[in-house]
Amino acid sequence: MTIEAKDEQARSPKIRLGMVGGGAGAFIGAVHRMAARLDDQFDLVAGALSSTPEKAMASGRDLGLDPSRTYGSYKEMAIRESEREDGIEAVSIVTPNHVHYDAAREFLTRGIHVICDKPLTSNLADAIKLKQAADESGALFILTHNYTGYPMVRQAREMVANGELGRIRIVQAEYPQDWLTEAVEQTGAKQAVWRTDPAQSGAGGSTGDIGTHAYNLACFITGLTLDSLAADLDSFVEGRRLDDNAHVMLRFAAKDGEKPAKGMLWCSQVAPGHENGLKIRVYGTKGGIEWVQADPNYLWFTPFGDQKRLITRNGAGSGPAAARVSRIPSGHPEGYLEAFATIYTEAAHAINAAKAGKPVDGAVIYPTVDDGVKGVAFVEACVASSKRNGAWVKV
Amino acid sequence: MTIEAKDEQARSPKIRLGMVGGGAGAFIGAVHRMAARLDDQFDLVAGALSSTPEKAMASGRDLGLDPSRTYGSYKEMAIRESEREDGIEAVSIVTPNHVHYDAAREFLTRGIHVICDKPLTSNLADAIKLKQAADESGALFILTHNYTGYPMVRQAREMVANGELGRIRIVQAEYPQDWLTEAVEQTGAKQAVWRTDPAQSGAGGSTGDIGTHAYNLACFITGLTLDSLAADLDSFVEGRRLDDNAHVMLRFAAKDGEKPAKGMLWCSQVAPGHENGLKIRVYGTKGGIEWVQADPNYLWFTPFGDQKRLITRNGAGSGPAAARVSRIPSGHPEGYLEAFATIYTEAAHAINAAKAGKPVDGAVIYPTVDDGVKGVAFVEACVASSKRNGAWVKV
Amino acid sequence: MTIEAKDEQARSPKIRLGMVGGGAGAFIGAVHRMAARLDDQFDLVAGALSSTPEKAMASGRDLGLDPSRTYGSYKEMAIRESEREDGIEAVSIVTPNHVHYDAAREFLTRGIHVICDKPLTSNLADAIKLKQAADESGALFILTHNYTGYPMVRQAREMVANGELGRIRIVQAEYPQDWLTEAVEQTGAKQAVWRTDPAQSGAGGSTGDIGTHAYNLACFITGLTLDSLAADLDSFVEGRRLDDNAHVMLRFAAKDGEKPAKGMLWCSQVAPGHENGLKIRVYGTKGGIEWVQADPNYLWFTPFGDQKRLITRNGAGSGPAAARVSRIPSGHPEGYLEAFATIYTEAAHAINAAKAGKPVDGAVIYPTVDDGVKGVAFVEACVASSKRNGAWVKV
Amino acid sequence: MTIEAKDEQARSPKIRLGMVGGGAGAFIGAVHRMAARLDDQFDLVAGALSSTPEKAMASGRDLGLDPSRTYGSYKEMAIRESEREDGIEAVSIVTPNHVHYDAAREFLTRGIHVICDKPLTSNLADAIKLKQAADESGALFILTHNYTGYPMVRQAREMVANGELGRIRIVQAEYPQDWLTEAVEQTGAKQAVWRTDPAQSGAGGSTGDIGTHAYNLACFITGLTLDSLAADLDSFVEGRRLDDNAHVMLRFAAKDGEKPAKGMLWCSQVAPGHENGLKIRVYGTKGGIEWVQADPNYLWFTPFGDQKRLITRNGAGSGPAAARVSRIPSGHPEGYLEAFATIYTEAAHAINAAKAGKPVDGAVIYPTVDDGVKGVAFVEACVASSKRNGAWVKV
Repeated sequence: MTIEAKDEQARSPKIRLGMVGGGAGAFIGAVHRMAARLDDQFDLVAGALSSTPEKAMASGRDLGLDPSRTYGSYKEMAIRESEREDGIEAVSIVTPNHVHYDAAREFLTRGIHVICDKPLTSNLADAIKLKQAADESGALFILTHNYTGYPMVRQAREMVANGELGRIRIVQAEYPQDWLTEAVEQTGAKQAVWRTDPAQSGAGGSTGDIGTHAYNLACFITGLTLDSLAADLDSFVEGRRLDDNAHVMLRFAAKDGEKPAKGMLWCSQVAPGHENGLKIRVYGTKGGIEWVQADPNYLWFTPFGDQKRLITRNGAGSGPAAARVSRIPSGHPEGYLEAFATIYTEAAHAINAAKAGKPVDGAVIYPTVDDGVKGVAFVEACVASSKRNGAWVKV
Repeated sequence: MTIEAKDEQARSPKIRLGMVGGGAGAFIGAVHRMAARLDDQFDLVAGALSSTPEKAMASGRDLGLDPSRTYGSYKEMAIRESEREDGIEAVSIVTPNHVHYDAAREFLTRGIHVICDKPLTSNLADAIKLKQAADESGALFILTHNYTGYPMVRQAREMVANGELGRIRIVQAEYPQDWLTEAVEQTGAKQAVWRTDPAQSGAGGSTGDIGTHAYNLACFITGLTLDSLAADLDSFVEGRRLDDNAHVMLRFAAKDGEKPAKGMLWCSQVAPGHENGLKIRVYGTKGGIEWVQADPNYLWFTPFGDQKRLITRNGAGSGPAAARVSRIPSGHPEGYLEAFATIYTEAAHAINAAKAGKPVDGAVIYPTVDDGVKGVAFVEACVASSKRNGAWVKV
Repeated sequence: MTIEAKDEQARSPKIRLGMVGGGAGAFIGAVHRMAARLDDQFDLVAGALSSTPEKAMASGRDLGLDPSRTYGSYKEMAIRESEREDGIEAVSIVTPNHVHYDAAREFLTRGIHVICDKPLTSNLADAIKLKQAADESGALFILTHNYTGYPMVRQAREMVANGELGRIRIVQAEYPQDWLTEAVEQTGAKQAVWRTDPAQSGAGGSTGDIGTHAYNLACFITGLTLDSLAADLDSFVEGRRLDDNAHVMLRFAAKDGEKPAKGMLWCSQVAPGHENGLKIRVYGTKGGIEWVQADPNYLWFTPFGDQKRLITRNGAGSGPAAARVSRIPSGHPEGYLEAFATIYTEAAHAINAAKAGKPVDGAVIYPTVDDGVKGVAFVEACVASSKRNGAWVKV
Repeated sequence: MTIEAKDEQARSPKIRLGMVGGGAGAFIGAVHRMAARLDDQFDLVAGALSSTPEKAMASGRDLGLDPSRTYGSYKEMAIRESEREDGIEAVSIVTPNHVHYDAAREFLTRGIHVICDKPLTSNLADAIKLKQAADESGALFILTHNYTGYPMVRQAREMVANGELGRIRIVQAEYPQDWLTEAVEQTGAKQAVWRTDPAQSGAGGSTGDIGTHAYNLACFITGLTLDSLAADLDSFVEGRRLDDNAHVMLRFAAKDGEKPAKGMLWCSQVAPGHENGLKIRVYGTKGGIEWVQADPNYLWFTPFGDQKRLITRNGAGSGPAAARVSRIPSGHPEGYLEAFATIYTEAAHAINAAKAGKPVDGAVIYPTVDDGVKGVAFVEACVASSKRNGAWVKV
């Protein structure tokens, strides 16, 4: 154990950041702001914080933004900021899903880097168009699949890559919650209303909101590509329009002529006793690992035929990939905000490299628009398979 | 908390017991004998302990059996014991699966009660014939789905029956192991050899050996009936002839016109880090529970909207169903042998009632030949579904 | 992992056993009987089950004892059984503490082996006299410090002996309970009444009932000898006459000129949330271990500078000392009764060796009258130290 | 569950902050900076980051400080900053202990608020003088006993205050670590060198570095005042000059004529398997609680006679005191940095109130110079008691 802590130090000037969405009453806007702040790489200077102009203005005031840079729409923000010498260099898009595509495009086409919440868009057509926009723009696109920022998730990925689990055979991923066990969307709870509304969320309910996280994590850790899936989706709550529970069987693409890996994925918003029960387990020919989001500083590892062991963040056996994104010594827990901040800091590394015209350091990792397209494809495949009575659907 | 312990006291004379299988080197024979002994309800007096006569004789000697009651075959034992005045009243059948049917029939037709290991038989045709034999015999048939003997499994079942979870929506059952991660059957390991041999085990590998336990437990706790399943089976180990990993989606039969419950079941023998990782989670409209076989004295219960709480065996909130099958106060763990013994003691209650010509107490619960038929049907449905690329198959 | 189970097989004839105490309503009598039965080494044939003759007779009937061998007093049993050709060879004494000395002496002097509950006696003078009686008798004396029968406790002891922890520096032992949080002895609860009565229990309350277990375990695992202690005892419940909470600092005797190990011991009967929270942690120059009675199949081990690892009973890294006293494979939990049964089976090994005039196998371990004397000395030292305001007292 | 997150919003202008210590290679300096940044209440504008001028300058550059405000000594910083119109309003002192007193005084006497690491000073005489300086200065003094910032610690305190545990009887506090198991200070490890040096740390080793945290937390949660203690300190590592393990028995002052509460405290730096194993358990007449720093989002609560339950941060049963200092919904873990940031944000509330000439909101809580004096008194009492062979010493 070493007992040094580190903060990402301000060797580069801070990146000027704008935000779309995230006004008062939003969950994820505040999270993005804290994440952007922790490692001191960004300066929030502009916002289009709400689609309601008065609310946008009030939220900007609360955040101490210059009123002249508090905009009534993202389009206005994109235009005006791109005209300023000191305009924003990057923008965080933290709105409901259906807004992502149009908002992101406005910034990308103006060369402003985009940090965008997931799922990428509310449908696959938009996702593909957004990918094109990103690819053509020259600007960077960072998708905040925030769980990939956890040090022990990086550790898990590194161990798989190093062959410590052998050839991967089985992936068990789950993300149960319980907050939609009853029909809270009918009582007007803001977070529930948009997440259960197809117009705002897209075709997937639990699959889009949390299933995509579990899916992304499974691929991130194992390096596998999903080939096809069979899904059984339900809306257990009377009157709910989107799935609130999904059972999915997974078949990954074969590698090197070996038997392909298989998996299961469960996501649910109606499982009492689970807050954010994201868990992933991976088993290979040489060992198995388990990681649980609620206890993120631990990675359980069992080499086959040997004892189960606990790898702690920055503790014994914790390698360079985890250390790179850790801030404090082992035994003092880091949490969700730190993992989220890591996505921002990885984005900063990439943006700074882009500004300097240099290639980004190979150790920098962040989810991209491609991961976003895959996530939306996953949601649509789940819906399609379920409609076809659980038939296998290629992703 | 009360701090009284109880042993099942010998108010009735002990039941004379024989055993088929379970000679030296067997796993489960010794378990059955300890289970039969713990509550002092049975007296092991005869055995056909091995299909190899010398081994049968040596094993009988080791166990202190009268040599004249150590038989070279179960058929001989059935015939000879049924002729004795003091012949066995019940027999335990602890052989590989393919022997169950024929052996059981020999005893049932002679009015000797049968306590039989699971899965019931190696194929559904035999299972159905065995059910007929049992139904026609007048003798009792007890299937040792031993996990149903755990007090906190009884507690879970009671809570579901009492409506404490509300209407059941989701069942998550799993039974991962790791002992077949490598091809140990090719090195001659006795337990592995027969369990991976279709001739001895039947069509299912992990599905038969452990999947049936998970399935039985899901039904036992929830009171639900499976309607259909979709399965994806694998034999990950090169050359293995039976499944060593199974992913199964479950659809239960609807009750009272409500949306039917759904579930997932995973069983594996190639998941490093799991010894006997049987776990079951059940979620309803009012709450969720979780039980893990390796820590069997605990039942986690979350009433929706309230705190997760730990119900301990005989502790606060632990009800009469658990207390009935507990031996010692809370805080001192009971284990696998105690749960197994409970199956034997339930069998003794039923046998004693039968001997007395009285109905058995309604609180007595044990798995029967019907559960056995369901288990074999489950295995065959898994195999059939998997062959049809995971199509939904009625059970 | 091997998946064979074993029962201690009846190669020797069963040992004829009597019991003193343990009639209806007793906690520990039933435990002793189940423990004696599990491995099939004993045959309970006689009893003086209660000091109330009618209750003694009724309890004998419940247990199926021959009425002619159901006695009204232990003295009568000792005399009459020692006169029979088929008289008992061993006796279990499961009464309150103050009876142990006199009862045990009656049997020892007649050459009947004694299996006795702890603490040994209600005062040190009796303990020393009992030791003399045992030493002079030629009969064996086995004290049921049952926690020493847990496989992972044996494992811990073996690891310390093998030097895997290096030189021991620190021992942290605790045994909290909560069942005496309120004054239940004033409501007549039988278990509470005698345990809080100095006349029946001796000078120690929690120290005698459970503190002795923690102390015994600390010495059993580490092989250390206590030099002195400083104690702060309380009776938190109004009107309680014996301690219900004890804080103790420990100094062990130096070994090999090294700095002596130190320790802390906490026992409590008024700590809400604890059922039988016996836990022991040992730290040395090379590693640390932790064992918790409620989860007895696990031993946590951290080699210094390396990852914490989970050693499971019969799993990887679990050695011969644990395997010797295990019955079933890893992953299926053994519990309290199994550990208790191990004490009985170790006793049977010793008794059978004595009967055969042979030395007992060196692997056989059981607590003796010497451990009992140490336990009572510990209790009296705690009381003495606490009366002297926590001064250090030699043990 | 609500799923809104919040960041402490910039309604007030940010507080201008300086830092003493915390240059390159320091552990705690980076932690303070991240903590100060998370809720956006402070702006780090000046520093005397090292006692080595070149290192101070380089560290300032790394942090992006204005070179003209990067000072070679804290005294120079205090003088120069107090002369500036835009000088620092508060200073963080993050040096080894022996520097705290003198540094803090320089700022206090100039009316600059002090945020200071613990223990307060390296000896009690300095601590008392520092208290006087603080009392006389009119400036605020905030001691970063950071664990008091954890939401579930606030929850525990609130529950005790609300009487949910009844009258407190027992406190069990421990803080084991293992990083000094070997003599790393002899290899020059910076963190180890000063922590084991009496000249820099004071009379206490583990007692000062971590024992004070456990002690502070015990008092913070229970509201109890320590009356006296008996301690047994050791330096297990050859050649170590300060204690690396301490066993302490605690007697709290009586309240309301009731029997006083008792406790035990263990701190260790030589306990392999513990990273930062701070744990506290409190038991009263009505219930018990347990909190573990490594899993800080959980508080275990057992109402006497009822089930153990898990209170999660912002989950069911989590009250206003915890919610006030939480940033994100339940199920997403907050960690050490967030708790540390809460101390800073509480400090900001107090400083802003002071600037506005208003009383601070009653809900604001932070450790003060008084807690610091108590901590140093605790260390010196431990040392004194241990020297007097564990005699009880008034604190």
